[in-house]
Amino acid sequence: MTASKQRQATASENSLMRIFTVPEAPESTLSRIEQALSQDLAGFLTQNIAALEKPLSEIEKDFQAFEIPRQPRFVSDYTEEMMQNLVAHSVHTAAPSFIGHMTSALPYFVLPLSKMMVGLNQNLVKIETSKAFTPLERQVLGMMHHLIYGETTDFYHQWMHSANHALGAFCSGGTVANITALWIARNQLLKADDEFRGINREGLGAALCHYGWKGLAILVSERGHYSLGKAADLLGIGRDNIVSIATDANNKVDVDAMREAATKLARQGIRVMAIVGVAGTTETGNIDPLPELAELATELNCHFHVDAAWGGASLLSSKYRHLLKGIEMADSVTIDAHKQMYVPMGAGMVLFKQPELARAIVHHAEYILRKGSKDLGSQTLEGSRPGMAMLVHACMQIIGKEGYEILINNSLEKARFFAGLIEQHSEFELVSPPELCLLTYRWCPSWAQTALNRQLAQGNLEKVKEINGILDDLTRAIQKKQREQGKSFVSRTRIQPARYHRETVTVFRVVLANPLTTDTILADVLNEQTELAASETGLLQVLKQACC
Amino acid sequence: MTASKQRQATASENSLMRIFTVPEAPESTLSRIEQALSQDLAGFLTQNIAALEKPLSEIEKDFQAFEIPRQPRFVSDYTEEMMQNLVAHSVHTAAPSFIGHMTSALPYFVLPLSKMMVGLNQNLVKIETSKAFTPLERQVLGMMHHLIYGETTDFYHQWMHSANHALGAFCSGGTVANITALWIARNQLLKADDEFRGINREGLGAALCHYGWKGLAILVSERGHYSLGKAADLLGIGRDNIVSIATDANNKVDVDAMREAATKLARQGIRVMAIVGVAGTTETGNIDPLPELAELATELNCHFHVDAAWGGASLLSSKYRHLLKGIEMADSVTIDAHKQMYVPMGAGMVLFKQPELARAIVHHAEYILRKGSKDLGSQTLEGSRPGMAMLVHACMQIIGKEGYEILINNSLEKARFFAGLIEQHSEFELVSPPELCLLTYRWCPSWAQTALNRQLAQGNLEKVKEINGILDDLTRAIQKKQREQGKSFVSRTRIQPARYHRETVTVFRVVLANPLTTDTILADVLNEQTELAASETGLLQVLKQACC
Repeated sequence: MTASKQRQATASENSLMRIFTVPEAPESTLSRIEQALSQDLAGFLTQNIAALEKPLSEIEKDFQAFEIPRQPRFVSDYTEEMMQNLVAHSVHTAAPSFIGHMTSALPYFVLPLSKMMVGLNQNLVKIETSKAFTPLERQVLGMMHHLIYGETTDFYHQWMHSANHALGAFCSGGTVANITALWIARNQLLKADDEFRGINREGLGAALCHYGWKGLAILVSERGHYSLGKAADLLGIGRDNIVSIATDANNKVDVDAMREAATKLARQGIRVMAIVGVAGTTETGNIDPLPELAELATELNCHFHVDAAWGGASLLSSKYRHLLKGIEMADSVTIDAHKQMYVPMGAGMVLFKQPELARAIVHHAEYILRKGSKDLGSQTLEGSRPGMAMLVHACMQIIGKEGYEILINNSLEKARFFAGLIEQHSEFELVSPPELCLLTYRWCPSWAQTALNRQLAQGNLEKVKEINGILDDLTRAIQKKQREQGKSFVSRTRIQPARYHRETVTVFRVVLANPLTTDTILADVLNEQTELAASETGLLQVLKQACC
Repeated sequence: MTASKQRQATASENSLMRIFTVPEAPESTLSRIEQALSQDLAGFLTQNIAALEKPLSEIEKDFQAFEIPRQPRFVSDYTEEMMQNLVAHSVHTAAPSFIGHMTSALPYFVLPLSKMMVGLNQNLVKIETSKAFTPLERQVLGMMHHLIYGETTDFYHQWMHSANHALGAFCSGGTVANITALWIARNQLLKADDEFRGINREGLGAALCHYGWKGLAILVSERGHYSLGKAADLLGIGRDNIVSIATDANNKVDVDAMREAATKLARQGIRVMAIVGVAGTTETGNIDPLPELAELATELNCHFHVDAAWGGASLLSSKYRHLLKGIEMADSVTIDAHKQMYVPMGAGMVLFKQPELARAIVHHAEYILRKGSKDLGSQTLEGSRPGMAMLVHACMQIIGKEGYEILINNSLEKARFFAGLIEQHSEFELVSPPELCLLTYRWCPSWAQTALNRQLAQGNLEKVKEINGILDDLTRAIQKKQREQGKSFVSRTRIQPARYHRETVTVFRVVLANPLTTDTILADVLNEQTELAASETGLLQVLKQACC
């Protein structure tokens, strides 16, 4: 091996190197697009995302090639192609009339800041590749911790930047946050003891053997998020050991039923490792009775986790934070900043009441995450990950508590306003009223409601089921056509309302998180649905016959 | 609840709404910064990241507040503060002289495209919030699959966009990719059988009981990445059941030793669930003998995973892809696009040889991920996540195979060139030569090498250890000072070279992935280290005495 000078670069090499050194020309396609994005994001999205829906099978035709292309391509050519094939057929998640997602319009400043974040290309796994981003992320976690737990000044001064402690963990989203919380709960319960080196070292089989339990269980409302099932699978607990507990008429978990389930499990030799409270169910937006769950967790001597991935942002409202009363008793809490905190996708967090909690999953490695270092990677599920915490930091500072107070209050009040519209409208039925800013409803004209009431009063549940089945078909048809027309969007889901004796019905689901959604837009959504219902002549006839 | 008009917005509400509707003024601080970023990213980073290092404890002083501020702030004020407190003290991961990380300068076009991605704010968990981004991500996975496995046209036409199949899973990084692969391996092995409903439903305890095994084990080289330990912990297998297998003089796993370990485990009633081949170890960059590992996996009837998080990009070079021969026999492969594929942080992937593999972890939910849907979230560990696949897509199309060929070849050849420089230099010792573009070395002048050789020849290992101990102190001191001087950066790690009878030594670690790193920069790195070594007069004296 000789240390001779490397050979001279060829022409094609030199041209390639330009992509690392020379910026896009200001007149190029990509520059023009970027300017349009900066000057008017909403306008850019409206103009470039096709209003009319193209079937997925058609879109896929543009993504058939399976070989990485040989030849390099001009940036402009590629960009133009992607504007047509990708951007045009993406989803306008920021549209004020698209009220079926947990997404919203974004504050303009997150765009240039995201670009800066990408340009800085920090890796938050360790100080060495993130430096100031590490204390920044710890501060974001500290602020979220304070929002939930409101500990003293001393507490934060002592723990927020402590190498061997963590007030939380930042991650890509609520699923990883929930998994992290339950991983900690499992490892804390099955910790080293006597000769047993702990589940983290010996594994779950040995741990159950040592502690003399047949299995572990997690108790959660039947409205719990599917990520909990994923966590139970991943952690070796098993999906069947996520014990689903019935909810009351308001979609809140029945704590007595949960207590009974725990007793039953104990008799079977199954240890309840955690109970999970839901603070904002994904499908109906309701909040479990958190203080009672905290009490039950104390009785059972188990971990109490609260999944507030979506609902947690409501803590930012001093007017409505009482709805989440008891959350400060949770051992861990999941909150997604990319939901109602107006941060772009990819910003999840789990917060820990006790700064020692994360020790149950601490790990070290030779070249990084050395013991005593402040490397964040030693306490997170993910390894390398970007500096998304910067965008949460920016939103918290620029919007401020006062700004969030307005945004959250407006969301909740807009949902109440929309619920009122639905209730007063003769063609709609409010199925679950909003506790936060999420509600469900369906198209169900007064004559169908009258028929349902009559059949319910007569205890004729088969007939109720038949009518609801037709209404389900209508809900699906209306939702699909509305989506395809591209003017507005509500999502749909299936729930089991107490009013219909817990039979499953299909409903529209609406999340009013976008500050740009107006009263008029909400009225228009109902008008469009009324028209779409009227156009379903076949189904309408069947419904009429069933309602006679 | 009445459907009266909502109340009128207040002045502060109207001013708040502007952040969702009005762009930054072109003359504002943030706009100016963004322009500077666009016009000259390298210049922006060099000018704004402070060359001299500030201690972390000092940086932390700017991140002490633990309450979300009450008052909203002006974007410009916030931005200026962050330029000083955050950007100035971030890490210049793109600097051509910072050759200690797996990061590089980025192609300019990823910045505006990232901004577009953030503006579109798609959520890849489901079609409903990502639409065309879903087939795009599937295409990226298809192309990566083809790069590794090179299946037929029919194969990709059949499976790439099939709802119930997956050629891989996109994720935030290599850690989640490795966890996903081992999760699948575990669930496939402990699948439903007879009355047993499968580990995913009944959990690990019941699974071990049903199959009659005492525990599970994963076999991997002692150079395996720490994420494997994390996976073993998370999956309930236990860190002690990641069985660490010795490596040969070239840091490649000893397959015979692995076979013996497997035999021993079988006698203990422990089932080997997977063997992991490392294709590019994090610390020395070597590649395990993949064909022999594949053969062993067949013998053991277990899953064969290859962790090519960093090394996998070398498959893009037709000249050097033979170094990873046998990777096409792996059941699953991890590759990070944010390492040597020049994509920003947050782009990990795991690829599956068999499109049915991911079924072992499939999950559904009511309101999304319905059965038969093409929602990506039903087959990934993460839930909500951003459209990062777009940036991988862009790099693959714009750089092309030909462009990557040049970039990868240059990286590998630059590493060989640097190894030559080190070998010819009288003050340095090449500790592990580069197989890909990673090497380790240390400052160790010829007189110290002579002394070490003499002591080794005499079998005086205590003395060797003493000299190496002093050299370790020197390596640490040089590396730290070099980092603090801010001109260049190499990382350091600890390895056990065969030459020193597997005693641990501290070394400089260099990754030559940045296309902008020149020969001159490499020579300068050595010159700076020579000077720093000369300034360590105290340690030098101790070394001289020990070498006498």
